[in-house]
Amino acid sequence: MSLNILYRGPAARGQHWQKLFAQNLPEVNWHTWPDVKDKSAIDVLVCWIPPRNYQQDYPNLKVIFSVGAGVDQLGLASVPEHVSVVRMLDPALEQQMTEYVLMSVLNIHRDTLAYAQSNLQQQWQPLKSRSAAKRRVGIMGLGNLGQAAAQALVSVGFTVSAWSKSVKTVKGIQCFAGSRGLQPFLQQADILVCLLPLTDDTRGILNLSNMAMLPSGASIINVGRGEHLVEADLLILLKEQHLRYAILDVFDKEPLTNDHPFWQHPQILVTPHIAAITQNDTAGQVLVENVKRYINQQAMLGLVDKQQQY
Amino acid sequence: MSLNILYRGPAARGQHWQKLFAQNLPEVNWHTWPDVKDKSAIDVLVCWIPPRNYQQDYPNLKVIFSVGAGVDQLGLASVPEHVSVVRMLDPALEQQMTEYVLMSVLNIHRDTLAYAQSNLQQQWQPLKSRSAAKRRVGIMGLGNLGQAAAQALVSVGFTVSAWSKSVKTVKGIQCFAGSRGLQPFLQQADILVCLLPLTDDTRGILNLSNMAMLPSGASIINVGRGEHLVEADLLILLKEQHLRYAILDVFDKEPLTNDHPFWQHPQILVTPHIAAITQNDTAGQVLVENVKRYINQQAMLGLVDKQQQY
Repeated sequence: MSLNILYRGPAARGQHWQKLFAQNLPEVNWHTWPDVKDKSAIDVLVCWIPPRNYQQDYPNLKVIFSVGAGVDQLGLASVPEHVSVVRMLDPALEQQMTEYVLMSVLNIHRDTLAYAQSNLQQQWQPLKSRSAAKRRVGIMGLGNLGQAAAQALVSVGFTVSAWSKSVKTVKGIQCFAGSRGLQPFLQQADILVCLLPLTDDTRGILNLSNMAMLPSGASIINVGRGEHLVEADLLILLKEQHLRYAILDVFDKEPLTNDHPFWQHPQILVTPHIAAITQNDTAGQVLVENVKRYINQQAMLGLVDKQQQY
Repeated sequence: MSLNILYRGPAARGQHWQKLFAQNLPEVNWHTWPDVKDKSAIDVLVCWIPPRNYQQDYPNLKVIFSVGAGVDQLGLASVPEHVSVVRMLDPALEQQMTEYVLMSVLNIHRDTLAYAQSNLQQQWQPLKSRSAAKRRVGIMGLGNLGQAAAQALVSVGFTVSAWSKSVKTVKGIQCFAGSRGLQPFLQQADILVCLLPLTDDTRGILNLSNMAMLPSGASIINVGRGEHLVEADLLILLKEQHLRYAILDVFDKEPLTNDHPFWQHPQILVTPHIAAITQNDTAGQVLVENVKRYINQQAMLGLVDKQQQY
């Protein structure tokens, strides 16, 4: 069986992956968008954002592989019913996200943002600290990224809980689930980490009423999607000192505009969507493995339930 | 046997520890400096800095317990030969130091200082990252703090090496030792963490010639003592871009003066000696245990070899 893959994305990554397929799955024909002669021959699309009107232009498309951990950018409602969607489960994404979450939780726990301000003000101002065991970190989202981050936090000594849509159990972590579990979860989270997929249910979940349930002096870390957070609500709660710090990697509109109030806010640290970047080598291996599975009609890793939207 | 302890330090800590001794070792008489009637009765001194002329004024002194992990502040050369010196091996110090080192290594690894500058400049500037496995962290000092930090770094995925005065072996870590091991150790350390005790041998060890052996683009973290680092040499190497970042918790003169060039340096993060603070509860338990051991003529935890100076 010969399979036609259309790749849309950065050229360097495409060349890397084309070689990888030539070595490992020579029966695959690799095409690079927009250079496609016979659109009807394309079976598989590998992309972040699909080509415009792909639903009509590629009538025999069977699978879309997202090059990132999320699939919200595809607009799942517009994906034809017979087309499967697969998200990227790159172990390097897990590693990078774990590093970022661990670093950000520690920076909040040990007051790095306040010390950065002291640096600017040239002031020696030691602050009282608290033991990690008494710092309760709450993770929203218990997919592979959430679980990896939770376990790293436990091993450093934090008290960790998690909230997910459906009931899950993870050793060493107090698990909350569903809409009923949200309030008790939020009420005990000193540091809230958003690692949720973006779905109709989770859009705007970090809003005024939910964030107000956090204990006074809590902080938030958003590494999900910008649309999880209502940016104006965050500014209100920081100003009222209900929230202490926010470390944000994702935003409503990226890149963040130069005049955005987050940039110079003393309680906010902005990073430019760098928490976890798909790595060409490891992600390429995962893609090859998944295409093999597709050819052999085996279950693909990261197959998305389009109803659940993740 | 009744034992007389003289405590010199913050009042709250003294009251806490006095109660702990009353509960656990009621045969101990607790005195709080400067309130001492019979100085010749004092057997044990618990302090950071001893009282002036203690060598003459307390002729029957047998042990000094430092309330911190270091003993350099005592001036070991001036401690009478028959007086033992014990440093604090508080497990809470280990935990806090591990947090600080892990956080600081991650902040260097993931370019937090550069992103903090981007925040001030309101610029979206993603930087290339590297995998933790390819980031070589070198730890100077393999005491209990160094070993705990090294193990935490290994578990997060970093490649870790260490250098110590005498030869040691730690699983999963490449160990270098002695003056001959210093150059090969430095030449392979992308992030250098100083956790050495301050001794005649280690004073000024972070100087121009040693830091110049680090790979180009390396960074340093100093959580040892300010006197380990030649501050002017650091500024030269940062300016030349041989060194990329420095995260510093200890300084030649503390508190750091308000006009010190470190404060607003874009490649430096200053913290006000907060990496590891002795905790009254856990340290009190260690002290009680050690005084019990002293009474029962058992080996004390953290007994200092005055020749080695640690």
